[in-house]
Amino acid sequence: MTENWAVGVDLGGTTVKIAFLTINGDIVENWEIPTDNSDEGKNITKDIAKSIEEHLAKWNHAKSDVLGVGMGAPGPFDYETGIIFNTVNLGWPDNFPLKEKLETDLGLPVVIDNDANCAALGEMWKGAGSGCTDLVCVTLGTGVGGGVIVNGQIVQGAKGAAGEIGHLTSVVENGALCNCGKTGCLETIASATGIVRLANEMLVDQNVESELRTVVTNSGMMITAKDVFDSAKNGDIVAEEVVEFVASHLGLVLANIANTLNPQKIVLGGGVSKAGDVLLTPVKEYFNKYCFKSVAESTVIDVATLGNTAGVIGAAWLAKDQKLNESIV
Amino acid sequence: MTENWAVGVDLGGTTVKIAFLTINGDIVENWEIPTDNSDEGKNITKDIAKSIEEHLAKWNHAKSDVLGVGMGAPGPFDYETGIIFNTVNLGWPDNFPLKEKLETDLGLPVVIDNDANCAALGEMWKGAGSGCTDLVCVTLGTGVGGGVIVNGQIVQGAKGAAGEIGHLTSVVENGALCNCGKTGCLETIASATGIVRLANEMLVDQNVESELRTVVTNSGMMITAKDVFDSAKNGDIVAEEVVEFVASHLGLVLANIANTLNPQKIVLGGGVSKAGDVLLTPVKEYFNKYCFKSVAESTVIDVATLGNTAGVIGAAWLAKDQKLNESIV
Repeated sequence: MTENWAVGVDLGGTTVKIAFLTINGDIVENWEIPTDNSDEGKNITKDIAKSIEEHLAKWNHAKSDVLGVGMGAPGPFDYETGIIFNTVNLGWPDNFPLKEKLETDLGLPVVIDNDANCAALGEMWKGAGSGCTDLVCVTLGTGVGGGVIVNGQIVQGAKGAAGEIGHLTSVVENGALCNCGKTGCLETIASATGIVRLANEMLVDQNVESELRTVVTNSGMMITAKDVFDSAKNGDIVAEEVVEFVASHLGLVLANIANTLNPQKIVLGGGVSKAGDVLLTPVKEYFNKYCFKSVAESTVIDVATLGNTAGVIGAAWLAKDQKLNESIV
Repeated sequence: MTENWAVGVDLGGTTVKIAFLTINGDIVENWEIPTDNSDEGKNITKDIAKSIEEHLAKWNHAKSDVLGVGMGAPGPFDYETGIIFNTVNLGWPDNFPLKEKLETDLGLPVVIDNDANCAALGEMWKGAGSGCTDLVCVTLGTGVGGGVIVNGQIVQGAKGAAGEIGHLTSVVENGALCNCGKTGCLETIASATGIVRLANEMLVDQNVESELRTVVTNSGMMITAKDVFDSAKNGDIVAEEVVEFVASHLGLVLANIANTLNPQKIVLGGGVSKAGDVLLTPVKEYFNKYCFKSVAESTVIDVATLGNTAGVIGAAWLAKDQKLNESIV
């Protein structure tokens, strides 16, 4: 008998990541295709369907051996209908029936969730959150995203807006303006963009020596978040101050989430999480400071392990989960 | 055929509230007995069992017609075993096997959760959260407690410490000391105790006229939270400032919870919630200010409707829920 697979799709503005997974979550094959957002994004679902069909054929695998397709996409959605309300990067008109289109083009059932939620499910299934049923994942990248899992299921919320961790207000007074329209969101502090902004502001405000100034002067390049962490490791005063500020706000927000949900783990992913102990050590200190005692004793902060395959793995989990009670499994 | 009932028990330090409910959540009878915490609390479960048996006999109702007993008690617990780790007011030694004791004394299955969670379940079943599956209840009383419901189930958390809403850190710097050992917890601001403390501090700090001063002078009594709200309604400057401060912190914390979970409703209960619009209007303003846009549009703040029967109703829901798949239902 042919092994049953789940298909995971992680739809981004530049590339679409696709993978075949066994029902145990092992990746059989993963690959990428470019996202063709020309012509109002008309080709996107067709390209995905064609690519999946070609790769199935290569493995002599029939569609009837596929549990279904899970897809992570930039929201917001109507989860029941799979209609995507609006996307900035994909070219589609508002209220695009993504689920229906891909099901028609591919002839397989499709389930959709937002990309941050899929990454969280991936970490739960095969990553740092493996074995956890209650888990919060926070992606610290260009922005800050999140996924909240309770009893092994993603929390969607009343309007699909649960897990907006990047938009918890952390700086209450005189916070920086966020892309969402509010001020003082965690995203303005703990994203790569936020860290660079803080460093540049401190270089202007403080008349002290800093090796971060030479980054700008020597290379003529902008400072990156990695520069800030590297300089902090070297004991640079400005960089250390930025990292301390970021850690205090991230620790506070994570503690308040933990006081609300007491998850088994909070998993940090994304480029900023790669900073390592220079960030994690102070984050954990502030987290413990702001946590209710029994929460501090039981909620663990950890780093994501799957990198950029988390999305396809979590998307495949959705397909597997949705079909669990059906005949094929 | 005799109607099947669920029994709800709400165990407090002074009284035990008990109720019989139909499986539709209608109260058949509710009553109270005193909590006998003498002799290491040895009589508490016996008294509860005896009282339930007497009331069943009065209604000619057999134990076999009872679905089970749900009980709300001051935690923390081990939810699986029903062992209560420690209680300040009930006289029991640490690690008291509450579930087992009551089951032995009464001869009926017992399920236990903490009192704040039971109140939340009560509001979900028959109160302000009726019809909601995703709900956060916050009790603003002497302290601040909470219960978080996702997909119709209480979120317990890794160590049973989910829903510690009173201990989310709200005042980050120079906050007042909380009973939990931290500083700046929401409970130090938005509890009746916190409101009175804030009012007294402002009366000392600010050399302005305030009718709150005459409360103390005329009656020789301490100011109450109700005095503060009444004076704010009268336009008293000090009282208004206290209420504004409380509302800003409560609005901030509720918004950050909503940004994490996007529940359908946040229900406010407890004595402080009875203040009405003088508190609710500014709380909602601050809530909207700090909420991610689509969260503000979909999470509603409301006031609890069940009062002090919420606990027994939610406890009875636990008994009903636990037995849902068994023969009797």
